[in-house]
Amino acid sequence: MDDRSLLDSIRHLIGEDETADDCAGFDLSDGRILVSSTDMLHETTDFPKGMTEFEKGWMSAAVTLSDIASCGAQPIQLLVAVGLDDPARLVPFMEGAVACAESVGAKVAGGDIDSHTELTVVTTGFGIVERSCCCRRTGASPGDLVCITGTPGLAMAALEGDERYRKNLLTPVPQVKAGQKIARAKASSMMDISDGLAISLYDMAQASGVGFVLDSKNFNLPDVCSGSAREYYLYGGGDFGLLFCIPPACLSALDTDYTVIGTVVSEKGVWCDGDPVEKRGYAHSW
Amino acid sequence: MDDRSLLDSIRHLIGEDETADDCAGFDLSDGRILVSSTDMLHETTDFPKGMTEFEKGWMSAAVTLSDIASCGAQPIQLLVAVGLDDPARLVPFMEGAVACAESVGAKVAGGDIDSHTELTVVTTGFGIVERSCCCRRTGASPGDLVCITGTPGLAMAALEGDERYRKNLLTPVPQVKAGQKIARAKASSMMDISDGLAISLYDMAQASGVGFVLDSKNFNLPDVCSGSAREYYLYGGGDFGLLFCIPPACLSALDTDYTVIGTVVSEKGVWCDGDPVEKRGYAHSW
Repeated sequence: MDDRSLLDSIRHLIGEDETADDCAGFDLSDGRILVSSTDMLHETTDFPKGMTEFEKGWMSAAVTLSDIASCGAQPIQLLVAVGLDDPARLVPFMEGAVACAESVGAKVAGGDIDSHTELTVVTTGFGIVERSCCCRRTGASPGDLVCITGTPGLAMAALEGDERYRKNLLTPVPQVKAGQKIARAKASSMMDISDGLAISLYDMAQASGVGFVLDSKNFNLPDVCSGSAREYYLYGGGDFGLLFCIPPACLSALDTDYTVIGTVVSEKGVWCDGDPVEKRGYAHSW
Repeated sequence: MDDRSLLDSIRHLIGEDETADDCAGFDLSDGRILVSSTDMLHETTDFPKGMTEFEKGWMSAAVTLSDIASCGAQPIQLLVAVGLDDPARLVPFMEGAVACAESVGAKVAGGDIDSHTELTVVTTGFGIVERSCCCRRTGASPGDLVCITGTPGLAMAALEGDERYRKNLLTPVPQVKAGQKIARAKASSMMDISDGLAISLYDMAQASGVGFVLDSKNFNLPDVCSGSAREYYLYGGGDFGLLFCIPPACLSALDTDYTVIGTVVSEKGVWCDGDPVEKRGYAHSW
């Protein structure tokens, strides 16, 4: 069983809307939406070997701030709950978390400190966005273009030893400014691709009730030393680019770098060059 | 080393104000404050043996909602990040968390599901309060009365086997309505006493830069079968009453049950019947 099927088991408790997105939304009743997101990371499954404490802190902040960014929101605060096997790890870890938050204009505003057998971190972020610009995974419509920012696969290449992309893997940068520009350009849906491009496409397709038709000729494949660039591109996790859908007419107003990789169709599923894309990516399993 | 001294090591990173309180505050610039709080709990250290999954979910929600309540705020949303050793635990656990949140008018709006060697939970809640009514640990002034709601010690009595107080220990009720009434009555400071009354008094005294003089004649000691009622009262953790300070003139407007246990003085420290109170309570240690 993986975390996506487990989530299905509690949809009736939390609500369909609330479980369709990595971010929760709360209407502040003044034209603004408060968005929030929470992520658990722990040593054995989430931090590549050799990471410094600073990098672990940075990454813990980044995964949550990236979710906030994918709503088109400005992150404002981050809370960091950390379970420590060794208290000496706290200061460099928090320095990393604070540096990442400050790099996108947010503030680490509190948290909790616990003892634990294994370094375990939960970051929770809050952001604010105008209601008219709030993007979710839902909303993609047939005829929209499917676009991404960044180059998927670089983090996985680094994980496989390509030192050129070490920063992509270890200190990923949440795409806050790009997310805001994409949201203001009236994208119909948006999410980050930190679990991998293919699984993210499936997540968004399911949330929006649509399908995606990709054309591999348009893929901005990564320059990799070994392995399959296409495998890294579609199935590598750990990249913090944004996946978004947008009506073609809105694209001219979008002042950020992006790649158009396909189009939205009404039939549910994800295809590339006519063939179904394999539905896999990063997932926890039991 | 305990978590309080460890927190001291990162005050320079997070800020004095941000680390003085269990809740972070964000000014929404429209007369309202967004307050938020996060808490990590895990199986071996935080859940008494024999608890059901429902009770663990309830308690996880309650610890955070109690912090929101202690600001005088209305809890709005709760995010629940849960690391599971066994996925079958998720549904009854979340039923407990949802029931607790709904009991105080809040909604579980999202979360994260992870695999972990040990049940590990981080609940993050946020609430909203009018700026003029937002209570913190800071603000207690000499001459204020020191008051509590509820009867400290009942949860510890239950932990020691007193079945009469089982619910106090396992499904504690966040004091949301009382918190709001106390805040509107213009209390100068407030926090919950979930780590124990004595350590909470020291925490509030430190945050406010004052001292407390208690009179044990006024203690509403718990009715316990064994052990020292005074020990339970001052040092038992797990009760979710509120500790607050308030100018004497404001007390007549307060429409909730409370007990006056002492007065605020300018000299820093906590005394009872003239003797220093021992500074101990619930703390994580390494």
